[in-house]
Amino acid sequence: MTTTTLLHLDSSISLGDSVSRALTARFAAAWRARHGSAGRYVYRDLAAEPVAAIGAGYAMLGRRVERKGTIPASDIAALAEGPDEEHEWSLTHPLVDRLLAADTVLLGVPMYNLTVPAVFKAWIDRISFPGVYTDPATGESLLRRTRVVVAAARGGGYGPGTPREAFDFQTPYLRAYFARLGVPAEHLHIVPAELTRADDIPALAGLQPIAAKSLADAEAALDALATA
Amino acid sequence: MTTTTLLHLDSSISLGDSVSRALTARFAAAWRARHGSAGRYVYRDLAAEPVAAIGAGYAMLGRRVERKGTIPASDIAALAEGPDEEHEWSLTHPLVDRLLAADTVLLGVPMYNLTVPAVFKAWIDRISFPGVYTDPATGESLLRRTRVVVAAARGGGYGPGTPREAFDFQTPYLRAYFARLGVPAEHLHIVPAELTRADDIPALAGLQPIAAKSLADAEAALDALATA
Repeated sequence: MTTTTLLHLDSSISLGDSVSRALTARFAAAWRARHGSAGRYVYRDLAAEPVAAIGAGYAMLGRRVERKGTIPASDIAALAEGPDEEHEWSLTHPLVDRLLAADTVLLGVPMYNLTVPAVFKAWIDRISFPGVYTDPATGESLLRRTRVVVAAARGGGYGPGTPREAFDFQTPYLRAYFARLGVPAEHLHIVPAELTRADDIPALAGLQPIAAKSLADAEAALDALATA
Repeated sequence: MTTTTLLHLDSSISLGDSVSRALTARFAAAWRARHGSAGRYVYRDLAAEPVAAIGAGYAMLGRRVERKGTIPASDIAALAEGPDEEHEWSLTHPLVDRLLAADTVLLGVPMYNLTVPAVFKAWIDRISFPGVYTDPATGESLLRRTRVVVAAARGGGYGPGTPREAFDFQTPYLRAYFARLGVPAEHLHIVPAELTRADDIPALAGLQPIAAKSLADAEAALDALATA
């Protein structure tokens, strides 16, 4: 039996009332039902169990590796000098391996202050070690077959054609970041849920129907992706 | 004697070899020399002494405040319900007050993975409490006279006209974020230092002269701003 792996990360600080968490939970349930015992499911809540912020040893080791060109992740430990660099790599390597092992990466990423939450950025800063997603033999990305699905909730409206489109540093950022890692555009699915705060913010009053439509669209898109 | 306050924050994980730290240190020294005993200097290293990630109580309290409209920071404590919300506000209020008390805010912000470091985003997520920068009487921003100076280092070249300009989610993000807080464009000075990794990254070899010019331009711009 061929197994397939889903890596699911959430990053909202809210729990019961989090739209991004509800959307990723919905996807994960559908995906697990679809794959049954052939589906391997790995979960981390980046708000409850944060990734440690990178430190000076991470930068030192990263520069040494970068000067040497592309080094496989398995060979980097041997280049670490001193306990600080060794510690930084010991925190990094398991997260890199987990990403490399995933067939689908499911990310719950709300917009906080126009872009991704700090705890999500801490994961990005940790996993983005120089060269580890490049095949040293071919120069191709090791993530070229990885599917990335993002439930991108945002309190306001930032969609194409809206007045605040230019203030969206969440979905264009995620698109640029995963493109740089080598995830092909056709495998990157960023699913927005707009105006999630329409009930709370007086200035958004009256936009609830648009919010409901956006949420229903996001659910349908994620259902289709989960069972594809 | 009229005093003036400089709030200086750094966020690079690197120390001796950090370009953003060197630039902010240069500005701070010139500023302190210029203002002498009339200058009040407040410093925090966000990498060494990180701001705690916001938690669920922050979001709960924030929503309650937002539903009520604009509330002065001094009245928010009375709205906190339960120890979690009280704790979140106790972590937030001093940082909000420190920002409100600053005449000049000096930020050392390197680009990590196309945008601001996680530890810098943690500060943003903490200080961006709903409504606290709005004058309840007039609706104007309480930061409309605050000067913000950012030393924005980045390893590659992302300046206007370069092939990677569209991948810069650092300086346009900071511009949009501080504009939303109400800092006028003419008081917001984002000073880039490009190609700071030209010595380390093989693909950037040969670009050292452009990097040196960019650094010299940044130093001159910051010197002028510090002594203005």
